[in-house]
Amino acid sequence: MFKLEKIVKREENFADWYTSIINNAQLVIYGQVKGTMMFQPNGWAIWESIHHLIDQKFKSLGIKNVALPTLIPYEEFSKESKHLEGFAPECYTVNKIGDKVLDNPLIIRPTSEILFCKYFKYVTSSYKSLPVKVNQWCSVMRAEKTTRPFLRNSEFYWQELHSIFATEEEGFKFTKDIIKVYEDVAINDLCIPVLCGEKTIGERFAGANNTFTIEGLMQDGQVLQCGTSHFLGQNFSKIYDIQFQNKDNKFEYAFQNSAGVSTRLIGAIIMVHGDDNGLVLPPAIAPTQIKINVMNAKKSPELVTLANKIKDLLKDYRVDVDDEDSGLGFKLSNGEITGVPLQFILGRETLEKNIITIVRRDTLQKVEHTLDINQLVSIVEKELNEFKSNIFNKAKERLDQAIVDCHSIDELKQILDDKKIARCHWAGTEEDEKQVKTLTGATPRCIIKQEKGKCFFTGKDSEDVVIFGRAY
Amino acid sequence: MFKLEKIVKREENFADWYTSIINNAQLVIYGQVKGTMMFQPNGWAIWESIHHLIDQKFKSLGIKNVALPTLIPYEEFSKESKHLEGFAPECYTVNKIGDKVLDNPLIIRPTSEILFCKYFKYVTSSYKSLPVKVNQWCSVMRAEKTTRPFLRNSEFYWQELHSIFATEEEGFKFTKDIIKVYEDVAINDLCIPVLCGEKTIGERFAGANNTFTIEGLMQDGQVLQCGTSHFLGQNFSKIYDIQFQNKDNKFEYAFQNSAGVSTRLIGAIIMVHGDDNGLVLPPAIAPTQIKINVMNAKKSPELVTLANKIKDLLKDYRVDVDDEDSGLGFKLSNGEITGVPLQFILGRETLEKNIITIVRRDTLQKVEHTLDINQLVSIVEKELNEFKSNIFNKAKERLDQAIVDCHSIDELKQILDDKKIARCHWAGTEEDEKQVKTLTGATPRCIIKQEKGKCFFTGKDSEDVVIFGRAY
Repeated sequence: MFKLEKIVKREENFADWYTSIINNAQLVIYGQVKGTMMFQPNGWAIWESIHHLIDQKFKSLGIKNVALPTLIPYEEFSKESKHLEGFAPECYTVNKIGDKVLDNPLIIRPTSEILFCKYFKYVTSSYKSLPVKVNQWCSVMRAEKTTRPFLRNSEFYWQELHSIFATEEEGFKFTKDIIKVYEDVAINDLCIPVLCGEKTIGERFAGANNTFTIEGLMQDGQVLQCGTSHFLGQNFSKIYDIQFQNKDNKFEYAFQNSAGVSTRLIGAIIMVHGDDNGLVLPPAIAPTQIKINVMNAKKSPELVTLANKIKDLLKDYRVDVDDEDSGLGFKLSNGEITGVPLQFILGRETLEKNIITIVRRDTLQKVEHTLDINQLVSIVEKELNEFKSNIFNKAKERLDQAIVDCHSIDELKQILDDKKIARCHWAGTEEDEKQVKTLTGATPRCIIKQEKGKCFFTGKDSEDVVIFGRAY
Repeated sequence: MFKLEKIVKREENFADWYTSIINNAQLVIYGQVKGTMMFQPNGWAIWESIHHLIDQKFKSLGIKNVALPTLIPYEEFSKESKHLEGFAPECYTVNKIGDKVLDNPLIIRPTSEILFCKYFKYVTSSYKSLPVKVNQWCSVMRAEKTTRPFLRNSEFYWQELHSIFATEEEGFKFTKDIIKVYEDVAINDLCIPVLCGEKTIGERFAGANNTFTIEGLMQDGQVLQCGTSHFLGQNFSKIYDIQFQNKDNKFEYAFQNSAGVSTRLIGAIIMVHGDDNGLVLPPAIAPTQIKINVMNAKKSPELVTLANKIKDLLKDYRVDVDDEDSGLGFKLSNGEITGVPLQFILGRETLEKNIITIVRRDTLQKVEHTLDINQLVSIVEKELNEFKSNIFNKAKERLDQAIVDCHSIDELKQILDDKKIARCHWAGTEEDEKQVKTLTGATPRCIIKQEKGKCFFTGKDSEDVVIFGRAY
């Protein structure tokens, strides 16, 4: 049965704080199968808003939604060896339908490149049929030993964008365009400053030539990968035979991209903005953007009427009127825990002096405003904009202060112990990446710029500046 | 590779007509796993519109969206015996994760009552926490021997609404409220007249006390179940222990409802409205509502500009500008096949005489209009309303004419041979239902009214008037 629990302090135990926030804000509960989640309305509404935001941006890039099956024949899946190697250990295998044992087992998609290859093969003919840019919203399954809600789940929700192009240039450019879309959503909608760049070899997607990523810094100093876009070159198109006729009537293999963001983003939102009172939700994805708390609602029908009138006035926002028979403290605390950006208080003062109190979730200060119906929309707009800037700036300052230049493995250890992240020159191999991880627990998160220097680990000439950090 | 095929005539072979429509309109292609579909953009956009329409109506009834896992432990699933009996033969079983064989196998949800029971148990405490009304949009899997796109698929998409109530009255009333929502969407948005009523015992959902249904008549005289709402009573709540404390602090089992519509609705839309030229789509769910065909687009930049201006003007509609370098016949035929309600033709006459031609998909008549920007929105509104009425009325007339009173099994056979459906008094048992099916291939579709009479099959006193028909 659901019960409100004490919220653990971040300083005391960040992991426990995280789960207490999720429980108290009623975002998800655990499913019966290990590592699965049951999204409650508060949790799912956040994801629906992210879905809507990204869909709008994708639409303007000519990307259309499709829906491909959940199951992949194992035989098909095993054709691309790196892809197989990367995903097979985590796959769920279906071996029986009804009471009939299958000769050819099926797997639940851990990702859908293989399925999209079949789709592309069908829709591709001449160069005129390209590019094809399609996306689906679905869940995928990857068995995880240690699971944490949103961050590491055996089943999680995502969008997976898949596209094919006639030329390498177009495909590569689009791969980068998409990571820019994700960066835009992270910064402008989720108020999360991110590092954006290419992954090193060891951190690439299984089967990709290049992986681009956005990475966010959580309040405990750990880094969270928030979205990736992969350039697959012709790796899959050669194996799955995706050919098109070029202008000279010759057959060529298409160039492919895939990209996605997942419900991990909800984990990022919690860990970047949340505080010891609960969730703090950016307005773009808050299920309730404004909560109107009516004091002594049962005895003040005129206040309830006013609250509903205000709700109608603010029709472009997601507004909840709380006219329950509970105390103001309980009402406000409920809005705080669930991260509502603005709360209004309507009480005796509203009737007597035409005053409403507005509480912003980031500052928690109660500010009195004269209730002027003509001004209310612009007050709300102003407060929400300030709220957005404030939570973004706090996170940005934290990120900027966390980045420390690093020149040796000892420095790296110290930086990580200080809950910071390291900026360093890097020219290591995949094997070197593994060694650094073994020694420090840190991985290269992304290449943030090109600059000549000496690799902090191998001492070799380096052309890349890389961020190393401990990651979720 | 995709190729336009000749559309089969309905009269010649209705089944082949159906698949040729789906192929030519590019709605879905088959997946690699038997009975699965790959939704192409044209097909998925229809489902996204249905999703949106139903979500809006559910929202006004206080129903909230959630998302529950794909997998159910077999052990949990097998607790409700009727439910198990109904679904086990169609279930996909997962017996392996990575290379580890599972002691306790998992099944892919064929429906999610069991999962929602776990959810309800968690969120239910006192009567104050009731009702709980939650819905999810997902796919489910049920192995089918004979599969047909949209009508019978091993994996299909649906919404499944699940709710619990403190009293039987509330639960039963809500079950009926939901079938009314589906009836409303069918009639007013999909322009499909439906028969609405309760199912007989043999046709009930596995585990339900009552099942209500909407049933549509296809152009081949067969009936298609388009949506169902089930009252589960306390059947599941007693087994899965969903209790609440009533006002007297005593524990009671909750009363439960579940309901859903699926991608079958797309099959219904095709088979109710489609003609020998292609799809005919109701405006509410047409991916493109208006297609603006520009003649000689490459040589007439001013026409392309005008087309885009018209598109901006019609911003409340889904408008596509076709400025491809192809002939008018090809452009119009493409709009016809894909079921676009209105097509505009912009050509030399538009420039010279300020005339645009509008072609309505239902009549296929070309009607010239003087292009008056101030009038265009109201012309579009009027044409779309007439289009809606026309396609609904055609289908309604067909349904009304198909219903024939029936008094004996021989009459029933004749009615079915005439591609009609039978209205008859019915007081048979589940066993009698099976016999009628064996003799005629028809099943009781729903009870359409209460009226005293004699059962056409058993001769017993009857209180129900039932529609019998052959069904998909």
